[in-house]
Amino acid sequence: MSFDLPEAVGKRIYVQGKLHPELRVPMREIELSDSLFPDGSTEKNEPVRVYDCSGPWGDPSVKCTVESGIPRLREAWIAQRGDVARTEGGALKAAAAASPPTQRAYALRGIVTPEMEFVAIRENMGREEAFRAVYDRFPHEKTRPQEAQQLLDELGTGMPRPSELEKEPGFSPQSLQQRADLRYSHPTEYAERTGVQAPAFFTPEFVRDELAAGRALIPANVNHPEAEPMIIGRRFLCKINANIGNSAISSDIHQEVQKLRRAIHWGADTVMDLSTGADIHRTREWILRNSPVPIGTVPIYQALEKCGGKVEMLSWEVLRDTLIEQAEQGVDYVTLHAALLERFVPFTAGRATGIVSRGGSIMAKWMMLHGAENFLYTHWDELCSILASYDVAVSIGDGLRPGSIADANDFPQLAELEVQGELTLSAWQHGVQVMNEGPGHVPLHLIPENMRKQLLWCHEAPFYTLGPLPADIAPGYDHITGAIGGAMIAQRGCAMLCYVTRKEHLGLPDAEDVREAVVTYKLAAHAADLAKGHPAAQLRDNALAKARFEFRWEDQFNLSLDPQRARQYHDLTLPHAGAKKAHFCSMCGPNFCAMKLSQEIREINRAEK
Amino acid sequence: MSFDLPEAVGKRIYVQGKLHPELRVPMREIELSDSLFPDGSTEKNEPVRVYDCSGPWGDPSVKCTVESGIPRLREAWIAQRGDVARTEGGALKAAAAASPPTQRAYALRGIVTPEMEFVAIRENMGREEAFRAVYDRFPHEKTRPQEAQQLLDELGTGMPRPSELEKEPGFSPQSLQQRADLRYSHPTEYAERTGVQAPAFFTPEFVRDELAAGRALIPANVNHPEAEPMIIGRRFLCKINANIGNSAISSDIHQEVQKLRRAIHWGADTVMDLSTGADIHRTREWILRNSPVPIGTVPIYQALEKCGGKVEMLSWEVLRDTLIEQAEQGVDYVTLHAALLERFVPFTAGRATGIVSRGGSIMAKWMMLHGAENFLYTHWDELCSILASYDVAVSIGDGLRPGSIADANDFPQLAELEVQGELTLSAWQHGVQVMNEGPGHVPLHLIPENMRKQLLWCHEAPFYTLGPLPADIAPGYDHITGAIGGAMIAQRGCAMLCYVTRKEHLGLPDAEDVREAVVTYKLAAHAADLAKGHPAAQLRDNALAKARFEFRWEDQFNLSLDPQRARQYHDLTLPHAGAKKAHFCSMCGPNFCAMKLSQEIREINRAEK
Repeated sequence: MSFDLPEAVGKRIYVQGKLHPELRVPMREIELSDSLFPDGSTEKNEPVRVYDCSGPWGDPSVKCTVESGIPRLREAWIAQRGDVARTEGGALKAAAAASPPTQRAYALRGIVTPEMEFVAIRENMGREEAFRAVYDRFPHEKTRPQEAQQLLDELGTGMPRPSELEKEPGFSPQSLQQRADLRYSHPTEYAERTGVQAPAFFTPEFVRDELAAGRALIPANVNHPEAEPMIIGRRFLCKINANIGNSAISSDIHQEVQKLRRAIHWGADTVMDLSTGADIHRTREWILRNSPVPIGTVPIYQALEKCGGKVEMLSWEVLRDTLIEQAEQGVDYVTLHAALLERFVPFTAGRATGIVSRGGSIMAKWMMLHGAENFLYTHWDELCSILASYDVAVSIGDGLRPGSIADANDFPQLAELEVQGELTLSAWQHGVQVMNEGPGHVPLHLIPENMRKQLLWCHEAPFYTLGPLPADIAPGYDHITGAIGGAMIAQRGCAMLCYVTRKEHLGLPDAEDVREAVVTYKLAAHAADLAKGHPAAQLRDNALAKARFEFRWEDQFNLSLDPQRARQYHDLTLPHAGAKKAHFCSMCGPNFCAMKLSQEIREINRAEK
Repeated sequence: MSFDLPEAVGKRIYVQGKLHPELRVPMREIELSDSLFPDGSTEKNEPVRVYDCSGPWGDPSVKCTVESGIPRLREAWIAQRGDVARTEGGALKAAAAASPPTQRAYALRGIVTPEMEFVAIRENMGREEAFRAVYDRFPHEKTRPQEAQQLLDELGTGMPRPSELEKEPGFSPQSLQQRADLRYSHPTEYAERTGVQAPAFFTPEFVRDELAAGRALIPANVNHPEAEPMIIGRRFLCKINANIGNSAISSDIHQEVQKLRRAIHWGADTVMDLSTGADIHRTREWILRNSPVPIGTVPIYQALEKCGGKVEMLSWEVLRDTLIEQAEQGVDYVTLHAALLERFVPFTAGRATGIVSRGGSIMAKWMMLHGAENFLYTHWDELCSILASYDVAVSIGDGLRPGSIADANDFPQLAELEVQGELTLSAWQHGVQVMNEGPGHVPLHLIPENMRKQLLWCHEAPFYTLGPLPADIAPGYDHITGAIGGAMIAQRGCAMLCYVTRKEHLGLPDAEDVREAVVTYKLAAHAADLAKGHPAAQLRDNALAKARFEFRWEDQFNLSLDPQRARQYHDLTLPHAGAKKAHFCSMCGPNFCAMKLSQEIREINRAEK
């Protein structure tokens, strides 16, 4: 079977832990070539370290096969804590009388687990050194304004008029660079005002405190030791999720594992297995044993398969047994549409597009047929006890999310959101890690309200949205629609974006659709990280911009989110190897290249001094 | 030569003028099929009228060839005004002693020209009837809150908690639909607060007043009578520009005309011809005679070609003669980098990416070599006199726009912006129509400041931006990067977005790149129009959402921005004609289709009543 995954750029390296010296935290390091100046002098460019989701699959020195699965990274950490025991079926589960083995429970007890240190190092991307080196190149970014200036206020005027600045005695390019206060709208200003600020460097203790406050989660089922710890929270890097899964129409198991590998190669931070066809259990087993990223599911799908697709046959018992089955297999987080209450359903009748969530529509139909309250809601405490026993995190679903611009931010959507908040609090009391799912189709001007209300009503639990899509008229391009809305909500604190592929609303995505969608969402999340002032986000942009300005084409390709595509597009018109050293591209040609002219201006400038 | 343009969906129709009954304003009308309900009843769906940029090329009843050019729509209107005369070369130009023949000058004198009525009808999209019909379907959108609620304030809480609403006596789905105040954040609220609001319907007088205030322009050279009038201003639909043009490396004339037709087919509102190679004059002639949309250029490119590519040989005289040559050919707007002053250039030396504008770097190099001020600035009044004689609009360039995240909103960028404002005022005094060009590479949190400062410093002249691109790390995907930033700035009032293709930074775009970029920017502009509360924007979304919910697949395809792609993606997994009537797609399969389940819930609901 052909498998078209390109070779990863750069090499996978590992950074050792300090509190837990056995930790080997993976990153990808991209080597850069030297800068070459017209006078023949050169300058070394430090390698850039980037976040890496590819796991052992991205490390040629680790030999693994789909059949054997990947190494069980967390097995010893879990065993050492001594709070889990084997069930009859061989799975791990909280030992009797033990406090729940969840990262939340450890954090509340003040414990810094290996998982917490792992994500702290991972979020820093081990970039302290390179970070300082780059900031030395751009000194105006080094310091922060002393006083918060409310320059992001829509009515503010910000920086003084340049013509006023020019009147100052001694004003020059040199004096300007020293005036830190001109960096009046440094990301941290914005971040502080919107509550998305991160510390200059992440520490294991900071991670622990965010977990304890419920502002972040580390999805890490004790039965999925293959997963490399990662954190979801608005003060960390924005994460993205990719959905895979076969439907009755298409796809097979081998394809699903390949989709997983493809998704993590391009940068998916978590993967949801939304399979609904035959072989759900077996597909999931293959995926879990081969996945270095947390796996999420929507258990009601499998429960419905067990009922032969008949919604009326669903019951609390079937769902409960399915949930336990999945928890024992190693699923890291589950979507449960528990906040969709019976009394909200009639409010969807007047909507333009009714209910568009699969899980939501299943639960709504069950409630209509039985005239009964949502069994996920009525059994919430029991559900949470099960989840806590395995450290399965819950993603409280938004079954009534709007499916069109016309339905955005309406009563049923917001009524469910309020109940998500109520359920968040009680799940936390069980020690369960929580996030909340969000929309959906929302026009741009209503997106900020979604984020504000979620933070307020759901007690700052991480928000995880599908899009939002700020228009309905672009089927075939909805990865872009969702990236526009996603960047905007992530900038305001949404912690994870679920990708939407260009096949959304139309069909099942193929390999190229997955690549396109993952890279697009990685881009949206990164744009948000820049705006949030994540301490290491801009490093890669700066390195790429410098490579671009210096016509280091290979470096520019290698630093990009999709090196193969960048190279391919360049080579379509200038395929010769020599063009990789050319000081122009086919876009403007040699005589009209602004970068080239701008370098010439620098030289004239230098000669005059 | 193969020309892969697909057939346009829907038919081109014409709406007659009232003040000027000879006007035939083009639109595209998309017929919809009937809704079919489970009980066998049907409901008629009104056709949807959409904005159409394709010109006579999009009307099969008009026979035109590239060699003959398209009909000269505005010829009689221009002649009837009696204020232009033929030059020796045969071009039209302001007659001696006449007031300048510009749409701005007419507006200031209180005249409503055919061009003004044309754009008023065009912006309404003749949708009054359909608009009312759709609002009847969604009654909660019909009325506006009586009191402005400051619910878009970042700190506001907006809608009361749903649980509080539920305590009201008689609260029900029916009572909710009647409570207009629950549409607490209707687009008009947002629009009023941000100054982007439009009237419920556009009138010719409203258009005139916006032109007179300088808040809008209708690029319409008297020598380009083929162009269908269109308006650029923040209280109208957001427009998009597509760049075409050959460079020394690639492309030929036939390809350029095809690119033009392709760009307008997909929805480009204006096209800039940025050719720099040989045959600049002849290429432009073919483009102008075949273009129903305004054509923009950057005259310094041709001036430099005349100087054999030697920047030092450039002069005011060469530029002036080139400008006159282009004005007499019919160019509708020109980019002039007149606000880039000599004293700003040294401030670019410390930048990460120097100067990235082609025109800007040419002017900067000229100033460095000559030690002289920008001749476009020193000859501004003379330039404006020339522009006014032909009604060529000026797009004041931003030669110092940032080329990387690191350089965003820095001193040179903002210093040039301030001078753009100064030049705007003096151009207006000459009767010239003006817009200002904007960045560039800007992170999300700094985008609002760009828009605010431009409005404030440039006296509300329309803003026309390239992107902005809120990240540097996605070469190969920069159409998406730019769409993210573009939607955000357009939402705040940017009047026109210049597209960026996925080949940006890498090479010259091909046919598929143009299609992908135009549709992507159309999407970004539309998302902004929704947020701005443009009176007709949501109509198409609502019609598409209804078609989607009712599984009217063909209608869903036809209403989308790229019908061919939507159909192609759907058919990849379900190619049979029968699937076009199926109540599911391959994404979820028949048993898990939320839309299908949701319709079943409606039926259960209906049966119970």
